[in-house]
Amino acid sequence: MRARRVRLQVDERRLKLIELGIRLFSARSYEDISIDDVAAEAGVSKGLLYHYFRSKQKFYVETIREASLHLRRLTQPDPKLAPVERLRAAIDAHLAYVREHSRVYAAIYRNGVGVAPEVSTILEEHREAVMRNFLKDLGLKKAPPVLRAAIRGWILMVEAASLDWLTHEELRREDLRELFVASYAAMLGKALELEPRGARTAKVMRRVRKESL
Amino acid sequence: MRARRVRLQVDERRLKLIELGIRLFSARSYEDISIDDVAAEAGVSKGLLYHYFRSKQKFYVETIREASLHLRRLTQPDPKLAPVERLRAAIDAHLAYVREHSRVYAAIYRNGVGVAPEVSTILEEHREAVMRNFLKDLGLKKAPPVLRAAIRGWILMVEAASLDWLTHEELRREDLRELFVASYAAMLGKALELEPRGARTAKVMRRVRKESL
Repeated sequence: MRARRVRLQVDERRLKLIELGIRLFSARSYEDISIDDVAAEAGVSKGLLYHYFRSKQKFYVETIREASLHLRRLTQPDPKLAPVERLRAAIDAHLAYVREHSRVYAAIYRNGVGVAPEVSTILEEHREAVMRNFLKDLGLKKAPPVLRAAIRGWILMVEAASLDWLTHEELRREDLRELFVASYAAMLGKALELEPRGARTAKVMRRVRKESL
Repeated sequence: MRARRVRLQVDERRLKLIELGIRLFSARSYEDISIDDVAAEAGVSKGLLYHYFRSKQKFYVETIREASLHLRRLTQPDPKLAPVERLRAAIDAHLAYVREHSRVYAAIYRNGVGVAPEVSTILEEHREAVMRNFLKDLGLKKAPPVLRAAIRGWILMVEAASLDWLTHEELRREDLRELFVASYAAMLGKALELEPRGARTAKVMRRVRKESL
């Protein structure tokens, strides 16, 4: 019992440090932040930080991992909504996150891999999780090649266009969302045409396409 | 007259070295190639290479610039074709280039900016040129925000999905092309709906959308 409580305290303290890291890396660039800054802000010793994370780079990787999980939780499709509304809600949550945490988002998708190669693995895991959500909606476990390319292409576009949006504030969030929905629906419809699926999947795909174009 | 002929010879020699560079950087990675290799292959002195290009990095940047211009010429829209066929032909040319020059393409879009920051400017110029081609097709000089985001998002998707295609050979080129066409048409149609344009543009947009969905 006692050992478990101690472990929970350790986990909680570690998580608090990571949350502080997300906040710091959101406000300033990787180069601008030293382990001394983090220790001072957290009110802990540098030794403790090194004990938990080994290096500034490893600490950075853990903040990116946590930010990625956070974004994934926020954009988790809501099963209570109809397919198109579920997609809209997930895109809205994504774009709200991008705007609110623009520095972290840019850090992850623009510079992350340059700072630490492990970021690339985190990004791929994120994309695979989003892909699984979409496939689940379609009642599929694995995507055939064209459908995979459609969903994957769409995910990559959302990432790149979200970054681009950060430097083009004149674009309204709901307009960008509607462009994403239109593109998704069109590619899904085309994938269905090029690579016919079972009746149930085809029905969902047709509904998404019809409702959103 | 004579000075002009000498300059032409210099330009031609420089271009030949750049073409050799494209070939070398297509076959091996940036780190694997030394200025000695280039000089040996070209049968010129290292001094001459440094005279033309100053450093291996500058030489690399020039090969990327030339590759970008080459790709731009290949994908130049053919005014003799109808809008959708023009788009299909340009995407086919793009994808053929990606497959044939996969290493150069990956070098430009995956690692280029890491090797030399100037590559980022070259990529932006390339995107702007593609954007201008699309706008010209629509009879526009400047894009309003939603249309800009639609075209820009689409360009970024084509880049990212083309890279991804290189590691997924099971996907047929024409299927990927049709996904791109469907996405372009849908986003163009949505941009028109969200941001009504003049009658002529609207007509072209509607035609592209109708013919390709």
